[in-house]
Amino acid sequence: MKLLIIGSGAAGLTAAQFARKTDRQAEITVLGNEGCGEYSKCGLPYVIGGVLPSLDDLIEFPVAWFQRFNIDVRPESEASDVDPEVKAVTAISLRDGGEEQYRYDVLLIATGASSWIPDVKGTFAGGGELREGILALRTMGDARRIMEQVQKGNRAMIVGSGLIGMEMAEALSLRGMRTYVRLRTHLLAGMVDEDMAAIVQNRAEQRGIHFIPRSTVSEIGGVRRMESVVLRNLDTGEESEYPVDLVIISAGSRPRVEIARKAGCRIGATGAIAVDERCMTSVNNVFAAGDCTEYPDLVTGRPVSIGLGSIGVRQGRVAGVNAAGGMGRLPLGVLNNRTTELFGLEISAVGPTMKELRSAGIEAVVGKCNGWTLPDYFPGKKAITLKVMADLEHGRIVAAQIVGEEDVHQRINVFAAAILNGMTLEDFLGLETCYAPPAAPTLDPMTLAADAALAKWKRR
Amino acid sequence: MKLLIIGSGAAGLTAAQFARKTDRQAEITVLGNEGCGEYSKCGLPYVIGGVLPSLDDLIEFPVAWFQRFNIDVRPESEASDVDPEVKAVTAISLRDGGEEQYRYDVLLIATGASSWIPDVKGTFAGGGELREGILALRTMGDARRIMEQVQKGNRAMIVGSGLIGMEMAEALSLRGMRTYVRLRTHLLAGMVDEDMAAIVQNRAEQRGIHFIPRSTVSEIGGVRRMESVVLRNLDTGEESEYPVDLVIISAGSRPRVEIARKAGCRIGATGAIAVDERCMTSVNNVFAAGDCTEYPDLVTGRPVSIGLGSIGVRQGRVAGVNAAGGMGRLPLGVLNNRTTELFGLEISAVGPTMKELRSAGIEAVVGKCNGWTLPDYFPGKKAITLKVMADLEHGRIVAAQIVGEEDVHQRINVFAAAILNGMTLEDFLGLETCYAPPAAPTLDPMTLAADAALAKWKRR
Repeated sequence: MKLLIIGSGAAGLTAAQFARKTDRQAEITVLGNEGCGEYSKCGLPYVIGGVLPSLDDLIEFPVAWFQRFNIDVRPESEASDVDPEVKAVTAISLRDGGEEQYRYDVLLIATGASSWIPDVKGTFAGGGELREGILALRTMGDARRIMEQVQKGNRAMIVGSGLIGMEMAEALSLRGMRTYVRLRTHLLAGMVDEDMAAIVQNRAEQRGIHFIPRSTVSEIGGVRRMESVVLRNLDTGEESEYPVDLVIISAGSRPRVEIARKAGCRIGATGAIAVDERCMTSVNNVFAAGDCTEYPDLVTGRPVSIGLGSIGVRQGRVAGVNAAGGMGRLPLGVLNNRTTELFGLEISAVGPTMKELRSAGIEAVVGKCNGWTLPDYFPGKKAITLKVMADLEHGRIVAAQIVGEEDVHQRINVFAAAILNGMTLEDFLGLETCYAPPAAPTLDPMTLAADAALAKWKRR
Repeated sequence: MKLLIIGSGAAGLTAAQFARKTDRQAEITVLGNEGCGEYSKCGLPYVIGGVLPSLDDLIEFPVAWFQRFNIDVRPESEASDVDPEVKAVTAISLRDGGEEQYRYDVLLIATGASSWIPDVKGTFAGGGELREGILALRTMGDARRIMEQVQKGNRAMIVGSGLIGMEMAEALSLRGMRTYVRLRTHLLAGMVDEDMAAIVQNRAEQRGIHFIPRSTVSEIGGVRRMESVVLRNLDTGEESEYPVDLVIISAGSRPRVEIARKAGCRIGATGAIAVDERCMTSVNNVFAAGDCTEYPDLVTGRPVSIGLGSIGVRQGRVAGVNAAGGMGRLPLGVLNNRTTELFGLEISAVGPTMKELRSAGIEAVVGKCNGWTLPDYFPGKKAITLKVMADLEHGRIVAAQIVGEEDVHQRINVFAAAILNGMTLEDFLGLETCYAPPAAPTLDPMTLAADAALAKWKRR
């Protein structure tokens, strides 16, 4: 059995490993275009910020590692075409530009996503390239180019305040750059609600980040290379020009679905590849996994294309098992359990934001707790803010958001388990949380937030 | 409505608060024998060890706080008798020894537990008192006496290696005492299995604790005050004498059920008061909560009397609501979610130990992960060891244990949620755990442990 995997990101290479575990005989080939084995894309901002010494540190499994398991990773082969009739993929060699042909019995598409660059005046040079001084972060090559630019100036503008935008803001400020972030509504808007974002913004401002609220980019200035960004205030229409040396565009990403389209795979409502719970596309024997796919959100039931490594590897696992003839299933939906650390704060969330809940027609009650990680009397306690959302109809937990200096990440996993299991607020209050003075309060802040939500729910 | 609560520990005073929330008119009286409001018993070792400056720091809600809610806490009234026919309790005033009478419509018994002292030669002075130099830790008074003794010597023996015994070992070593711990099998035997305990023992030894393995106390020596402990090796029978200045007996506790017996309440198999899911005893209008009660273990179905503050407050809540005429229910069983920190290690567990599973006839598969809290490449990662147990029959998660320097406590809460919801290993693999390089690996060590268990379960 010939299994061909297009894409050497976390989803594709996890799929390769699990395909190998499932079928020891299969011929497994992986086409990649980044020139290396498996590395952590999420680690890139930490190299740029100097937390990690080198990009090489991010390589988790080199090509040779896969060879040991008889997985043929071709790290310089960019898939360009597919013929689903004859079951063959054409690729371009990034070494010599030559054409390569790969036959398959089963195809697994894990082509990921690419940075989305809004078409603002002054963004592009001729030939669709970004002008010098304007960069987006997606690949190791992007990170390398950003680090070169960091050497050349000391003022940066982040266009976009999502997860990667904010991680880049911290990274560039750690590198000593004066860093501006343009905000439309609030930072991390896809991740947390405005009240939680305010805590993070406050901390970021203390650490020297300059936010420009309610603004959009109207033009990028400069004659040859980029020299400034012109922002327009969304309320007043007033324009201001910010002379900067580096612009990071962090306006989200778009799934890469060209190959999938050519293979005849159905593209879903989000523009990503639609897959079933076995990660199969609409085409028999063609599977897909990772950032190029969409899948229903467990809470809203609507298809979403998330682009998180944690989801990518889980999909990769299921796709790899099934592609190799085994049987694996995804849960009924994605939880979108997401986390980061910024400016000494841990920020985690699971389930839809309030805005997303509203847009899906789900009315929710919110319970909030401004608590402490440890009992009041215990030294070293840190402030922690939690909110938990439950649907008005059944009182079921549908989302949670947490911000604090410590012990945030694993608490969001508790809420993730609650949502996955359809726990109501009442059920959640029955969850014994662990307690010891140096560990957590008798009633955990999670319990207190759920209790606050329950009180509101009972008055509904 | 007159509600009388006997016991001013966490369960009794939590019950008082929730009774007040449920019924704003009720006459609520709480009889306590410790001379103060609500304080954290679990915090006592941290005052003894000097982590907290004073016992007063542990008082979370003084008597006056309860008065504001019209809850009459009598902190020096030791209940001595009850007449369920006339619905009256007799108490002895600890101030003047006088008798007091309290009438009730509803009685709530939260008498807690007392330290169990094995009857070893040389333990008791005349009148059933412990000889000077021998102490147990349960109350603030105990802690005060231990701190006085700490001034008087520099060698201590801990008899018992459970949670309180080990917390006292650390506290006394922090106070500069040479500290011995006698072990029968392994430390924290009620909390974790031998392999996990070995990690903690190793660390404790590095921090200067002296363990005396496979030993039992055959005699406590000394003419007037305690002067030494004679230990007998359980295998060889050989005896060794250890001259010490202080002996801490930490051999477990016994529920205090005298009043419950007099009220006619059924005492269960563990010797504690049997309650239903509303915390009602076998006697109508008599409720009970906390360390004096037993309740089924969720996994084994067998009654257990746990003695954890986290369970006590949850029972107190339900008991208080029901005693005041509301409706609250406990979950079907207790999870026994327990945690501590010792010598810089976080140690958490939920569900029965392997020994308890075996004794309940539950065959289990074990998955273990020696992992890291962060991705391999990220600075600051800490080692973490997890094991997860699933029943052989259904592959349902029944227990978990975790030891590590960081991020242990909240991970055990994730497993607690898994057990409460009856998740199988397969279900658990479907749980998206949060991921970011400074937060957790793409596949959390929890997922890896569950994966290891699943592989074994599939080969069953």
